[in-house]
Amino acid sequence: MDDLIMLGHGGGGRLTSELVHDLFLKNFRNSHLEPLNDSALLTVDQKSLSFTTDSYTVNPIFFPGGNIGSLAVHGTVNDLAMSGACPLYLSAGFIIEEGFRLADLEKIVISMATAAQSSGVQIVTGDTKVVPKGMADGIYINTAGIGVHEKLPFGPQRIKKDDLIIVNGTIGDHGAAVITSREEGFPESTIISDASSLNHLVLKLQKNSVNIHCLRDATRGGAGGVLAELAEQSRTHLQIEEKSLPVKEEVRGFAEIYGLEPLFLANEGKMLLFCPADEAEKVIQIMKHDPLGKNAAIIGRVVEENQPTGRVIMKTLIGGERIIDQPSGDLVPRIC
Amino acid sequence: MDDLIMLGHGGGGRLTSELVHDLFLKNFRNSHLEPLNDSALLTVDQKSLSFTTDSYTVNPIFFPGGNIGSLAVHGTVNDLAMSGACPLYLSAGFIIEEGFRLADLEKIVISMATAAQSSGVQIVTGDTKVVPKGMADGIYINTAGIGVHEKLPFGPQRIKKDDLIIVNGTIGDHGAAVITSREEGFPESTIISDASSLNHLVLKLQKNSVNIHCLRDATRGGAGGVLAELAEQSRTHLQIEEKSLPVKEEVRGFAEIYGLEPLFLANEGKMLLFCPADEAEKVIQIMKHDPLGKNAAIIGRVVEENQPTGRVIMKTLIGGERIIDQPSGDLVPRIC
Repeated sequence: MDDLIMLGHGGGGRLTSELVHDLFLKNFRNSHLEPLNDSALLTVDQKSLSFTTDSYTVNPIFFPGGNIGSLAVHGTVNDLAMSGACPLYLSAGFIIEEGFRLADLEKIVISMATAAQSSGVQIVTGDTKVVPKGMADGIYINTAGIGVHEKLPFGPQRIKKDDLIIVNGTIGDHGAAVITSREEGFPESTIISDASSLNHLVLKLQKNSVNIHCLRDATRGGAGGVLAELAEQSRTHLQIEEKSLPVKEEVRGFAEIYGLEPLFLANEGKMLLFCPADEAEKVIQIMKHDPLGKNAAIIGRVVEENQPTGRVIMKTLIGGERIIDQPSGDLVPRIC
Repeated sequence: MDDLIMLGHGGGGRLTSELVHDLFLKNFRNSHLEPLNDSALLTVDQKSLSFTTDSYTVNPIFFPGGNIGSLAVHGTVNDLAMSGACPLYLSAGFIIEEGFRLADLEKIVISMATAAQSSGVQIVTGDTKVVPKGMADGIYINTAGIGVHEKLPFGPQRIKKDDLIIVNGTIGDHGAAVITSREEGFPESTIISDASSLNHLVLKLQKNSVNIHCLRDATRGGAGGVLAELAEQSRTHLQIEEKSLPVKEEVRGFAEIYGLEPLFLANEGKMLLFCPADEAEKVIQIMKHDPLGKNAAIIGRVVEENQPTGRVIMKTLIGGERIIDQPSGDLVPRIC
């Protein structure tokens, strides 16, 4: 094993998945880890908890619509909310490069505090490490989170044939915002990250007794990568319609120039929801009444269940069919 | 605020403490964070949980007695055990530099799995990020952890006048091992890190109904730094005896050559225990029957309580008195 870690191992696509299966799952194997959901489901004294972690290395640290601090709160809150848990507590672990401006750290910390407050979570424990100049890129932040379940947790194991697939709005905004702010070629770009905590919207759906089968936030790998992953985990075949995918005009334009696809651009405030077909209208109505769901759309459905392997097929604009797979390389490194 | 982050801000001493108070606590303030213990005490459905996080950036990654992976498990397990919690679940967040050897990653992961198994915890959720070459120093690992409480949690608020202070063995081993393995000047050094999980030893004390008032692992800042911190948090005056401090001969020799003090060298398998004087003999007996406590010793006592500020005085070998303060700079960067 003389192989080296490549950027793609952290890209959330095929290489990441191989690393997770062949190294992490193989060595750490246990029933909580095995489902490989974004959060682990734990039982403590008959109470169900979700527990999750994410390290954030986004470049640049400040981008339109947020910064690494707000992202670290929203991202981890969302990982908890996606399991149906009510997010309660976050930890924050900082790795800071020597020479980083304290004023920038303060901005980041204030954004975290604001994001935590608006999400209804508390940052309850933390850690700070400083590494010498040149041993990091400014700042990296890890947030772990704990949430509690009132009801049965959502998850890919509950995805069923004929479920509809809904997204709560336009896709690709975060990826496009980070890339445009990274380079100097887009001085007039108006693309803004969608980074936001989705837990309140999820709670609204729960309070309205929506029968949610599965929720997943479409972060690294974008909606396409996450759907491919969910198809694999649930052993279902999914079909999505290209014409139904909500994409902002400026994101579409940006993606075309760069040869990227919005379907594979990261989101930080978008989730894919699976529910029985007769629940879909209610979901869309609830979402459209929320600022975080006003562009919600049904984008596809589950066409087969109990398959040997999962598969996602997209009906293209021109009427063809195309397999949507997990991206194999690293489309956009350090997007979160 | 044009100040810059210095290595000392991550050293666990005075600068870290200022950053934590003036920035993190100020912005994140809540009742769980405020005690600033190594883990936060949470209540979920009337059950007490401890929740903690630590990022590990130790240099070198492999050192005598362990590596960054085993350290990341032992360190976080210990932070939970110190509150009296039974550690159950860990998360693992990896930030890996592009070009890192997969074989080394495998070694690290296997060490984590072994350490987790021997500590009786499960790694239940994780995350992998890869940053471009030159943006990290090989690998950084964050572990967050959850433990449950059967009994009243320990903590500095329970430290009382006349409590005795006990350490479970020799101090400074981890710090000395990491420094000697970092440089080429010590090819024949026999100093080995004490990195190990203390939860089983803590459980033994609990099962024997020892009335523990406070436990804290003496990591960054060493036994001296941690005592100074505890004195501050408990508003007590502590007195320790230099002649009672257990220090290995080779560590003492190394420290003298380098002008360092074992009292301020990091440990990763040592804890400071506060208990009523009439419990001390029992504690020492239990510890001495455990491989992790065979050099246990009473090193001091609490001489005053309810003070406006905390203070630690050391009676020196030559009969003088010396104030032991939190180290102000960064004695040894990236020790954990």
